[in-house]
Amino acid sequence: MVPGPTPLPPEVVAAGARPIIYARTGEFVAIWEDAMARLRRVFQTEGEVLVFASSGSGAMASAAANLARPGERVLVASCGHFGNRWAAICRDHGLDVLHLEGEWGHPIDPGAVTDALAAEPGIGVVFVTQSETSTGAVSDLPALRAAAGDRILVADAVSGLGVVDLPMDRWGIDVVVSGSQKGLMTPPGLGFVAANARAIARSAELGPGGFYLDWERTRKGQNASPPRTAFTPPVTLVCQLQAALELMEREGLPNVFERHRVLGRMCRAGVVAAGLELLGPENPEANVVTSFLVPDGVDGKAIPTLMRDRFGIQIAGGQGRLSGKICRFGHCGYYDYRDIITAVGALELVLLELGRPVELGAGVAAAQRVMADAQRGA
Amino acid sequence: MVPGPTPLPPEVVAAGARPIIYARTGEFVAIWEDAMARLRRVFQTEGEVLVFASSGSGAMASAAANLARPGERVLVASCGHFGNRWAAICRDHGLDVLHLEGEWGHPIDPGAVTDALAAEPGIGVVFVTQSETSTGAVSDLPALRAAAGDRILVADAVSGLGVVDLPMDRWGIDVVVSGSQKGLMTPPGLGFVAANARAIARSAELGPGGFYLDWERTRKGQNASPPRTAFTPPVTLVCQLQAALELMEREGLPNVFERHRVLGRMCRAGVVAAGLELLGPENPEANVVTSFLVPDGVDGKAIPTLMRDRFGIQIAGGQGRLSGKICRFGHCGYYDYRDIITAVGALELVLLELGRPVELGAGVAAAQRVMADAQRGA
Repeated sequence: MVPGPTPLPPEVVAAGARPIIYARTGEFVAIWEDAMARLRRVFQTEGEVLVFASSGSGAMASAAANLARPGERVLVASCGHFGNRWAAICRDHGLDVLHLEGEWGHPIDPGAVTDALAAEPGIGVVFVTQSETSTGAVSDLPALRAAAGDRILVADAVSGLGVVDLPMDRWGIDVVVSGSQKGLMTPPGLGFVAANARAIARSAELGPGGFYLDWERTRKGQNASPPRTAFTPPVTLVCQLQAALELMEREGLPNVFERHRVLGRMCRAGVVAAGLELLGPENPEANVVTSFLVPDGVDGKAIPTLMRDRFGIQIAGGQGRLSGKICRFGHCGYYDYRDIITAVGALELVLLELGRPVELGAGVAAAQRVMADAQRGA
Repeated sequence: MVPGPTPLPPEVVAAGARPIIYARTGEFVAIWEDAMARLRRVFQTEGEVLVFASSGSGAMASAAANLARPGERVLVASCGHFGNRWAAICRDHGLDVLHLEGEWGHPIDPGAVTDALAAEPGIGVVFVTQSETSTGAVSDLPALRAAAGDRILVADAVSGLGVVDLPMDRWGIDVVVSGSQKGLMTPPGLGFVAANARAIARSAELGPGGFYLDWERTRKGQNASPPRTAFTPPVTLVCQLQAALELMEREGLPNVFERHRVLGRMCRAGVVAAGLELLGPENPEANVVTSFLVPDGVDGKAIPTLMRDRFGIQIAGGQGRLSGKICRFGHCGYYDYRDIITAVGALELVLLELGRPVELGAGVAAAQRVMADAQRGA
């Protein structure tokens, strides 16, 4: 239960065991085109989805490389470790970064973005984070869209895509970046960039954004007929992605979001009823990762270590400045009711072993009540 | 029998069907460290091997990004489609490229490199190709090393690594770039850069080479204790790489090279005895890809199409200016005696169907004679 790489459904594991398919055959092209059509539906866009053989950070870096030129002033608004990565990426690409860093655990403050842009109206691109994997905070993209005015808005949805609703066209988000290994239930190794027409036009006008991560080169290959990826695609990962997207469509995207909504509420309710304090304010949309504070007097590594050693449940600790101070449950992707119940129950037993005051079953019951409410349609 | 992505041994397929392993566990770190140690032995280097979630072109692009700065004059010496990719990569990274393009099908001319560097002594980095996948030509790296003098020499060995002997430390090649999907019998999605100390030092001195493909960031993660990759690694592909490298070590690297030497000779002998003309001069080290000219009066696509439709054998056509003019057999990676015999036999039948004068069995017998000689140790 770490926030990525997440577990694979058996169908996706099996798709990884297919013999290699030559990338230029009709057989592979059919798989590719099917996966691309499904991917656009997950991004909820009529725009283009560019696929890179890369981690999610590679897709993020491509946005900085293709949407701005060295020396250009850009805005990064962040609230955690991965939001801060936008600032590092932009700086390493030579951009002049105005970095607004909000409190970790809280969502990004749209008001701060509005104020910053009022003071620096020349900024053309704004980088934000939808789901901040290091804390669990999910920011309000429609509010950030409004705050960014007519600037190009780029959102990192590496952990949130396919977990939390993100209708990018309807909300007018210009660019959404993601990866294969979290909500999409596929092994790591594929990075995605969904971009609308004006983001594509800006990138094309600026010229090559490097070579490997250049959007125009990737577009040219993907948009050829038949599609011919610019570079050898990771054919086995694409087959696995197709299998995962099939599962998501079979479940239905609204049902996928609703399942995560219930899992998030179950996890938060269970953790609180086990006597722990959540990081940051309650947010009914923050259903990707649940973070709680390590209680005073408990070693930061003890809870994840005991969860793993006693129950075989892998959870994550904090990152960056929250290292040792929080623990994180990931519940994005291939997770269901049983995962939360067993994890909350194990957490109670671990807290007991650590000498914390805990009423066994209280957390489990709180999680069950959430499920009961959900089943009644409450 | 295309030159990549190449077939996977069953052990490598099976390794792709393992459930996901969280990248930060001891279990994965042990797999990673084992694969890295084996990879250094395949590169025959005491230097560092950096691993990127990327295609081979991503690893190539990283060399241009980390070894030179925009505006800098560099030399690219090429003899085919992928050698020309070095020039495109360097140009898209803003480098000032002196491009020596030799005849396709021939190896790179070391004399031309010597002359060019004598005329432009300020050049610090030279990019060349070991195995030119688009033609099958294998260039003489020791001769190119001598020609490049004290410049940093970067060699693309995407299709040649683990196929043709390349003792990079002994030969003094500063940087060797490769990928997972050819000689290493692993699915596409991993790019490798092996670099010696002076190449690493040059890169470090120049500062970040972008973000995602920055060598220092990747080094810092890989060299941490325990190693902690800069970005989520493609865990399933790393497991498959480990399985493939185990197989290569079990066979023994010298035996792997010898097997490819015999397969290359078999294929060339078979093709010639079937009445076809090889592209370029005979080279006993060119054992990665065998290219032959499409006979006059035959449609360039007919031979690959019939090979596939009649016998289920996928071979490749030409690329770039050789499109429609040559056909290519790839025999790099998981190939043996039976693959060459069946492919040459199928080629004879296809030529017969196309109305070419062909003596059935002549090509097969020629390939057999090579094997007989090899078995006698001739």
